[in-house]
Amino acid sequence: MVADIATVIATQQVNIISMREYVDTVDNRFFVRIEIAGCDDPLPIEQQLKIILPEDAEINVNPSPNIKIVVLVTKEYHCLGDILIRNHFKTLGASVECVIGNHQTLQDVCTRFDVPFHFISHEEKTKEQFEAALIEVIANYQADYLVLAKFMRILSPAFVEKFTYSIVNIHHSFLPAFVGANPYRQAYERGVKLIGATAHFVTNDLDEGPIIAQQIIPVNHSFSAPDMVRAGKEIETAVLAKALQSVFEERVLIYKNKTIIFE
Amino acid sequence: MVADIATVIATQQVNIISMREYVDTVDNRFFVRIEIAGCDDPLPIEQQLKIILPEDAEINVNPSPNIKIVVLVTKEYHCLGDILIRNHFKTLGASVECVIGNHQTLQDVCTRFDVPFHFISHEEKTKEQFEAALIEVIANYQADYLVLAKFMRILSPAFVEKFTYSIVNIHHSFLPAFVGANPYRQAYERGVKLIGATAHFVTNDLDEGPIIAQQIIPVNHSFSAPDMVRAGKEIETAVLAKALQSVFEERVLIYKNKTIIFE
Amino acid sequence: MVADIATVIATQQVNIISMREYVDTVDNRFFVRIEIAGCDDPLPIEQQLKIILPEDAEINVNPSPNIKIVVLVTKEYHCLGDILIRNHFKTLGASVECVIGNHQTLQDVCTRFDVPFHFISHEEKTKEQFEAALIEVIANYQADYLVLAKFMRILSPAFVEKFTYSIVNIHHSFLPAFVGANPYRQAYERGVKLIGATAHFVTNDLDEGPIIAQQIIPVNHSFSAPDMVRAGKEIETAVLAKALQSVFEERVLIYKNKTIIFE
Amino acid sequence: MVADIATVIATQQVNIISMREYVDTVDNRFFVRIEIAGCDDPLPIEQQLKIILPEDAEINVNPSPNIKIVVLVTKEYHCLGDILIRNHFKTLGASVECVIGNHQTLQDVCTRFDVPFHFISHEEKTKEQFEAALIEVIANYQADYLVLAKFMRILSPAFVEKFTYSIVNIHHSFLPAFVGANPYRQAYERGVKLIGATAHFVTNDLDEGPIIAQQIIPVNHSFSAPDMVRAGKEIETAVLAKALQSVFEERVLIYKNKTIIFE
Repeated sequence: MVADIATVIATQQVNIISMREYVDTVDNRFFVRIEIAGCDDPLPIEQQLKIILPEDAEINVNPSPNIKIVVLVTKEYHCLGDILIRNHFKTLGASVECVIGNHQTLQDVCTRFDVPFHFISHEEKTKEQFEAALIEVIANYQADYLVLAKFMRILSPAFVEKFTYSIVNIHHSFLPAFVGANPYRQAYERGVKLIGATAHFVTNDLDEGPIIAQQIIPVNHSFSAPDMVRAGKEIETAVLAKALQSVFEERVLIYKNKTIIFE
Repeated sequence: MVADIATVIATQQVNIISMREYVDTVDNRFFVRIEIAGCDDPLPIEQQLKIILPEDAEINVNPSPNIKIVVLVTKEYHCLGDILIRNHFKTLGASVECVIGNHQTLQDVCTRFDVPFHFISHEEKTKEQFEAALIEVIANYQADYLVLAKFMRILSPAFVEKFTYSIVNIHHSFLPAFVGANPYRQAYERGVKLIGATAHFVTNDLDEGPIIAQQIIPVNHSFSAPDMVRAGKEIETAVLAKALQSVFEERVLIYKNKTIIFE
Repeated sequence: MVADIATVIATQQVNIISMREYVDTVDNRFFVRIEIAGCDDPLPIEQQLKIILPEDAEINVNPSPNIKIVVLVTKEYHCLGDILIRNHFKTLGASVECVIGNHQTLQDVCTRFDVPFHFISHEEKTKEQFEAALIEVIANYQADYLVLAKFMRILSPAFVEKFTYSIVNIHHSFLPAFVGANPYRQAYERGVKLIGATAHFVTNDLDEGPIIAQQIIPVNHSFSAPDMVRAGKEIETAVLAKALQSVFEERVLIYKNKTIIFE
Repeated sequence: MVADIATVIATQQVNIISMREYVDTVDNRFFVRIEIAGCDDPLPIEQQLKIILPEDAEINVNPSPNIKIVVLVTKEYHCLGDILIRNHFKTLGASVECVIGNHQTLQDVCTRFDVPFHFISHEEKTKEQFEAALIEVIANYQADYLVLAKFMRILSPAFVEKFTYSIVNIHHSFLPAFVGANPYRQAYERGVKLIGATAHFVTNDLDEGPIIAQQIIPVNHSFSAPDMVRAGKEIETAVLAKALQSVFEERVLIYKNKTIIFE
C-alpha cells in the first residue's frame, strides 16, 4: 500500500517533505501522513488515491491550512494570554476569530489585541439557553476549532456533538488521575509528588476524550493546594500550546478514542 | 521552638550537618529533621528535647543507622537486580537480609550474590496460610523494612498491620491513575502520553498509602501495551531506588497519609 | 548560630513563615533565609542580628518588596510577551517600569499594555554612546533589576559594573555548552539530543555569571537548526519566568559566582 | 524512491513491521529503516534494492541480529552491574562475551554471572603495549561492539580506527559541556542547575563522536561535587542502557558525525 500511495504522489510531480506511517497491529489498520510541497491542485491526488485505496479508507487532502478558532474562557488568564501573544505575532498556526467568556474578566486583554470578545453569562440561563447563546455567536465565525482555555463550564452532549473532535480542552490534571472538579485539591490530599496537565479533545464522557498532550512537574510536601494551582498553571499553558501546535499543523489523527500524532 | 531545639543541640557540643524544617500551616504542626555529627551518645539530646518540647511532640533520635531489609518478589527481575547490585557494592544504604519469592524464578540471581532466598509458594495455600509462612521467615531476620520489588500478591490488612509504615511497594503506574491490576493495559486503552511509576508505603487501602516517589516517561501512539510494560520497567527500577534511598537515609516523615521528605 | 538567630526573631513577636539554611562546608560559611509575617518594623531585628552575628556577616532585612524592573529587548517577542502578560495580571512579582528596545519591533505590544517603550538604536553609535543612552533612560526609573529578554547586544564591563548582580539574562543554550553566538547552530552541528536554556546574572565574563535556572527539552535528528530555535524559545520563556520568580521573591543569594536558591 | 523500495519489499511476500524515513534536506540525502518479518532469506531483497537504488546508496540488510559485545571497565560498578543483570536475564539485546578491566575491582561480580573477566593493567605498560594487550584479548571474541562502561583510559587513534563506529562510551557530562576530565568538579565550580550524561560513539576526537543519547537531572546549591558524582551515576547507567538498546536494535544510523535514530 505504501508503494501504491508513493507511486500516486510521485506521478504528480510534487515533493514529499515528510512521510510518517503507523500500523495498528491489533486492528490491522494502516495510517499515513504525507506532507508535500509544490502542489497547486490536490484534487488529482485525492482522486487517484480513491481509486487505488480500499473503499473504507479515509482520505483527507488538506491544502495549506488557514485555520480559524474561537476560544472560550472563564476568568483565568494564563492560557488565553499565551494564545493571544502567539496569535498577535502570527506563530499560533491559527487565527483567533473571537474569544467568548462567561465572565467579563478577560475582555480587556482581548480588546488590547483587537480580538473580539463576547460576554455570555451562564447566570440566569438554563444550560440549554447558555449553549444556544454560545452557538449563536460561534456561528458568526467559521471556526475550525473551539479551544477551551480554562473554560469552567461543562458542555452538554448536544453541544459537543455539534463540534465532534473540534473542541480542544486543557484539563488541570494528569488524566486519568483526578477526573472532575478540584484536581489540585485532590492531588494535595493524596500527597502526590508530581502534578500534571492534559490537553484532549472533548467528547461526551467528561475528561475522557482522546488525549493530545500531557506533561508533569515535580512537587513536594511543602506545596499547599494553592501552590499546586500556581505551579500547575505553568504546565497547563505549556501543554495546551503544544497540543494546539500539533492540531493546527494537522499532525493529529483520531482512532478509537486515542490520538495518533505524527511529530 | 527552633531556637529552643537549636540551643539544646548546641549545648551538646555536636555539629549540625543539616537542618530542615516544614510547617504544616493547615494543621499548625512543625516538623524538623536535624542531622548531626560527632555525637557518641544521643540519649542526653533526646532527654533534653523531651523536656523542652510539648508533651505531644514525637521525637525520634536515630543513631547511625544499620538498616536491614527483606525483599519480596514474584518473577520480574528488574527491581531486584538493581537492589542486589547496590547491596553487593554497599551503596544501597541497607543490608538485604534475605529475598522471599512466591515463584522460584529469582532464586538463582540471589544465590549468585550470596543472598538467602526463600521460596514460599502461594499455591494450595489460603491467604492466611501464605502470609503466616511469610511471617515465619521474616521473623528470623530483624528487618526494619519489607520491600515489595514487584511482588504480585495483595497483602491482607492483618499482615500490613504487623509492619505499619515499614513496607515499601513499587506500583507500576502514576498513582492515583490506574489503581489496581494491569495498569499498562489501562494506560494503553486510555491512550495516555506519559506513563509513570509510584513508590509508596503500603497501608490497608490498596495503592493508597503515602507516596514516596513518582516519575514518568513519555510514550506515544506507537507503544503497544507490552512496549509500555518494557518502558515502565525502567522507571519502576529508578523510582524504587530513589524512594529506598530517601527512606534508608531517614529523610521521610509520615503525616496524615502523606510523606514529608527532607532532601 | 541558628539558635541565636531564632531567639532574636522569637523575641520580636513575629511569625516565622519559612526558614531555610545552607552550610557551605568547603568554606565553612552559613547561609539562612527566614521569611516572617506580622512585622511592622524590621529595624529592631536588624539591629539585634548585628549584635549577635560575627562582624563579617552579611545581613539583609527586606520589607515586603515592591520590585521595579526595566526590560531590554531586541526583536524576539516570546520572553517579553510572557513578562508583559504576567505584569498585566500582577503575577510577575515585580512591576515593569519600561521596556527598551534597540529595534522598534516590540514597541507596539508594549503600547498595547500601556508599558512605556524606549527605542534606542545601537546603529551609528559607539558602544559607549549606546550604553550612555541606555543609562540615561534607565536612570528615570528606579529599577531594582534589568532583565535582558533576548537583548542581543553584549554589554560592556563598565555598564555591567553599574548594575552588579542586578542584570538577569536568558541565554539560549544549556551553559556552559555553546557559549557565545548561534548556540542552536552549534547544537545542530554537534548533533545533541537535548537543547537547553540558562537564566543567569550578568557579569563581565560573557555567559559566565551565576546561573539561576536551567532547563532542557529533547530533540532528535529530524530537528533542523530553525526547528531547534523554535523549540528553544519555549524553554527560554519558561526558564526566564522561573528565574525571575525566584529572584523577585528574594530566594536567591549569590556566593562565589554561584547562586544559592531557597525554594 | 519510497515507492520503488516499497515495491521491492512487497514483491518478496514479507510483512513490513515498521518503516521510518528521514530526509536530510541540507544535503538532500534520504534515509530509511524498514523492519520486516517472515523473511527467510534477505538476499533477494538486497539484490533487488541494489538494482533499483542509485549506485552510491548504502544498503544494509541485517538478518535477525545476534550481537556480541566486549565491555571495558575500570573500577566503577554501576554501568557494568546494569549490563550484567540485563545480560543475565537476556534483555540486553546482545550477549556479553567478556569484560576487560584495567583494575581487578569488578572481576568478582563478573565471575558471579559466569562472564569471563580479563584483567589487563595499564601500569608499567606504554599505551601501545596496553592497547596491544586489549586487542589480543578482544580478538578471541568476535565482538560487534566494544562498550566502555566507565573505562577511564583514553584510547589512541590507532585503536579507535580498528573499531570504527563500534565503540560506545558513556561520558559523565552533558556534552559538549565539560569535555575531558573531572566534569562533575567542573559542574560544581560552575554552579550549574542540571547535570547530564552522554552516550556516544568513540572517534579520534576526544568526547566528540556521534551522540546517541543524553539525559539530565536537576541539582542545586546543596550538591557537593561528590553528591553530583553520586547523582550522575544514576543517569549514566540509564543513558548507557538506552543508547545500547537503540544500537543493538539497529535503530542508529551515522551520518556526518551525527546519529539518526529511528525509534
